Amino acid sequence: MSQLDDLLRDLVVANRILSHEDVVDAYGHISVRHPDNPKRFFMSRSRAPELVERHDLIEFDAEGEPVSDKRQPYLERFIHAAIFEARPDVVAVVHAHAEDTLPFGLIDKPLQPVIHSGAFIGGKVPVWDIRKKFGDTNMLVTNMAQGRDLAKCLGAGNVALMRGHGFASAARSIIDVVRLSVYLPRNARVQMNAMRMGGKPKPLSKGEIATRVTGYKPHSPETWRAWEYWAHRAGCGDMIGEPHAHTSEK
Amino acid sequence: MSQLDDLLRDLVVANRILSHEDVVDAYGHISVRHPDNPKRFFMSRSRAPELVERHDLIEFDAEGEPVSDKRQPYLERFIHAAIFEARPDVVAVVHAHAEDTLPFGLIDKPLQPVIHSGAFIGGKVPVWDIRKKFGDTNMLVTNMAQGRDLAKCLGAGNVALMRGHGFASAARSIIDVVRLSVYLPRNARVQMNAMRMGGKPKPLSKGEIATRVTGYKPHSPETWRAWEYWAHRAGCGDMIGEPHAHTSEK
Amino acid sequence: MSQLDDLLRDLVVANRILSHEDVVDAYGHISVRHPDNPKRFFMSRSRAPELVERHDLIEFDAEGEPVSDKRQPYLERFIHAAIFEARPDVVAVVHAHAEDTLPFGLIDKPLQPVIHSGAFIGGKVPVWDIRKKFGDTNMLVTNMAQGRDLAKCLGAGNVALMRGHGFASAARSIIDVVRLSVYLPRNARVQMNAMRMGGKPKPLSKGEIATRVTGYKPHSPETWRAWEYWAHRAGCGDMIGEPHAHTSEK
Amino acid sequence: MSQLDDLLRDLVVANRILSHEDVVDAYGHISVRHPDNPKRFFMSRSRAPELVERHDLIEFDAEGEPVSDKRQPYLERFIHAAIFEARPDVVAVVHAHAEDTLPFGLIDKPLQPVIHSGAFIGGKVPVWDIRKKFGDTNMLVTNMAQGRDLAKCLGAGNVALMRGHGFASAARSIIDVVRLSVYLPRNARVQMNAMRMGGKPKPLSKGEIATRVTGYKPHSPETWRAWEYWAHRAGCGDMIGEPHAHTSEK
Repeated sequence: MSQLDDLLRDLVVANRILSHEDVVDAYGHISVRHPDNPKRFFMSRSRAPELVERHDLIEFDAEGEPVSDKRQPYLERFIHAAIFEARPDVVAVVHAHAEDTLPFGLIDKPLQPVIHSGAFIGGKVPVWDIRKKFGDTNMLVTNMAQGRDLAKCLGAGNVALMRGHGFASAARSIIDVVRLSVYLPRNARVQMNAMRMGGKPKPLSKGEIATRVTGYKPHSPETWRAWEYWAHRAGCGDMIGEPHAHTSEK
Repeated sequence: MSQLDDLLRDLVVANRILSHEDVVDAYGHISVRHPDNPKRFFMSRSRAPELVERHDLIEFDAEGEPVSDKRQPYLERFIHAAIFEARPDVVAVVHAHAEDTLPFGLIDKPLQPVIHSGAFIGGKVPVWDIRKKFGDTNMLVTNMAQGRDLAKCLGAGNVALMRGHGFASAARSIIDVVRLSVYLPRNARVQMNAMRMGGKPKPLSKGEIATRVTGYKPHSPETWRAWEYWAHRAGCGDMIGEPHAHTSEK
Repeated sequence: MSQLDDLLRDLVVANRILSHEDVVDAYGHISVRHPDNPKRFFMSRSRAPELVERHDLIEFDAEGEPVSDKRQPYLERFIHAAIFEARPDVVAVVHAHAEDTLPFGLIDKPLQPVIHSGAFIGGKVPVWDIRKKFGDTNMLVTNMAQGRDLAKCLGAGNVALMRGHGFASAARSIIDVVRLSVYLPRNARVQMNAMRMGGKPKPLSKGEIATRVTGYKPHSPETWRAWEYWAHRAGCGDMIGEPHAHTSEK
Repeated sequence: MSQLDDLLRDLVVANRILSHEDVVDAYGHISVRHPDNPKRFFMSRSRAPELVERHDLIEFDAEGEPVSDKRQPYLERFIHAAIFEARPDVVAVVHAHAEDTLPFGLIDKPLQPVIHSGAFIGGKVPVWDIRKKFGDTNMLVTNMAQGRDLAKCLGAGNVALMRGHGFASAARSIIDVVRLSVYLPRNARVQMNAMRMGGKPKPLSKGEIATRVTGYKPHSPETWRAWEYWAHRAGCGDMIGEPHAHTSEK
């Protein structure tokens, strides 16, 4: 298979994994930048991630519009377009409503990395409130102006919470952004549980975050182990191919 | 199939979805108004929603009594009859005991929409206490007088909590009331989790609620996406037909 | 089938239900009094309830010893023997470690019925502490003296918590004790969640508890609905027979 | 089969159980000491425990290096090597990130045994912080110096928490360490829930802990009951053989 074929196969698997790991339900989506044309990206048509198949994938342009495809796209595709625009280093984007991330968007206590697998969320996670700039909306990111405002809040980080709505996460590969998105709610739960016992949970130090992020390789055996496991659980373990087929993506 | 056939098929699917999404267990029920006779409605005989099939459905009259059907009906069918009576705009009603809605019926802190998918619960959700008017009962709504009192508490809203018991929700279609009932416990969990961290969670603004409710169409591609997903998870994805077959219901 | 056959078939089903509904895991057990000999009862040999089959059932005497059966019994069979001895009205007993009942055994805040399906736990649930009378033990009820002390704590009630260990529940039929044991942890979670929001949850009134308990029939269509549902979920829906076969048990 | 064959079969089963019971996900591992060479131990190659098969097992030397095996080992194999080195009484070791143990590594409130099945965690569980001695790291135990420091923190105990990371547990058999690791998160949840209600949960007394630990036999019928149950749930009930085949291990 070509690199593009591998990538789109991985995008399908990522959809299924995010659904099976409860990051998304009928809503939420994942996209990947076109490997040959950085102004384009791929994402499913409007469909629950659990059900996404290869032929559901649509190519989008830099403004978040489908490229010669009449099928219904996700309403919030502008989240992806705006982050790809603002962040040339980003290869894959997730938007989701994972339940346990939501409380941190509602109160003045920041979500922070407190477990090693949460290191990739960076330091304190910013909260984007669509109301601040756009007033009373239906809370959805339905145009590029809103998407760009969210991308600005994300800045050089990996994840931004969206008040009363969910989060957007960005990373340099599909496997990275899936991993980040799966461990984000877990980090949130652990932090909530520690806070609720009346303690002040000790976050990872800046040095620890930096050491983890620097040392991390998206196609190491450790990462492949998780990818194989999640795909297996999601019922598509037979779709992932061999580790070496993914090494070339980097 | 006729419109009625479509509707009853959807009612069966809705039973299975509500069970699979943990809104109901052996108890709890969903009804739909008769499309040709607004004084009648359909609901299953006394059976766990997960097991309901087409032939379990019974037609009920305006007083909540089965129309020429000797099978055992649900004891609390009066919840449905009374809401259909009080609210001509309502097409479908759910009564359930979803666990995470219950704490808000026991304390003086109102359940409020804090996430965008919870917008449809309206502003602060009222709590109906059967004891107030009916004294010590078995807590169940077993006659029209009790049903009417509950319907009065619901007023023009979409959901009322029932102290120590559950909730009643009402909407203009089966798909709407299912969606509302699935996201209600999620909204409750998010609000509880935010409150427990010692914060005062920021609810959706009135304008946000209004914008979401106004803009929402029960047979949009976004809603169909959830219906297809939930039906698939509940093991009846093959029963739902095509989106266009539902558009006519509106 | 004879009445005894029906009863033992129900006991097998009850084992599977309690396991599937997370009331028991590898540990915990359910017993039923012999219908023809009130000084005897039936319970499985030492086996995880999920795996119990008809031939695993053993007949026990009034002292909790197997009647001509060499197979390994549960260590804590004395809980059952002592409750059957103290309470002629009791037909079935459960002992389990259901996780969400345990916190209430550790602190000075009583578990109370706060939801209608929890009415059968009675008023404030007593907590038995084996240490009080028996000092430092392995926490298990391994003789009749300990069982009798627990039965004394239970008194005329339906459930007693056991500090750091679990609970014992008693009722007039298998279906009653299963229902009580399934809703007990749910009631505990709802109460915990209400308390954690800083509220003082309103319990059911004495009159409500009395009305529910008085009006309840173990073989009503409402109860059968739950039995059929739980059995179906536990994979033994085909074992339960028809409702009328159970009516005679009463 | 030989004793070694039995042991390695049990190690495979233990991997599957730990995964199915949510103690490990893609990460976390279990090892067993070589029965004939106490300076060696067995553990899977770098693979998610759910997927581990007999041929994935690797033999390791006292320094945590694979013995003539080129396959990728787990990065944190030094946890196992260091504990086997420091504790001749230990036969099996688990390292895992079980979510509900993590909050106790972040705050100044010790995890304690509050339920009888948690007795094996001993008194207050120590928390090892890699930062204390090794400064800013990637949080992983990647050499023998770090492993030895962790083993020192574990001391003569059965479990040590690792700040922001997970725990290491050690016991005299595979079945013991699995049991300990499954009930550890449950004990943590019960303690958290009791604390959150504003209570000060009563822990097991020293005498109770001692009585339970002294009286416990790893191959008793009670332990076999759990092993059979967990293996059955994990889909490998057919792999475990008969109880007597395990008795000889002790």
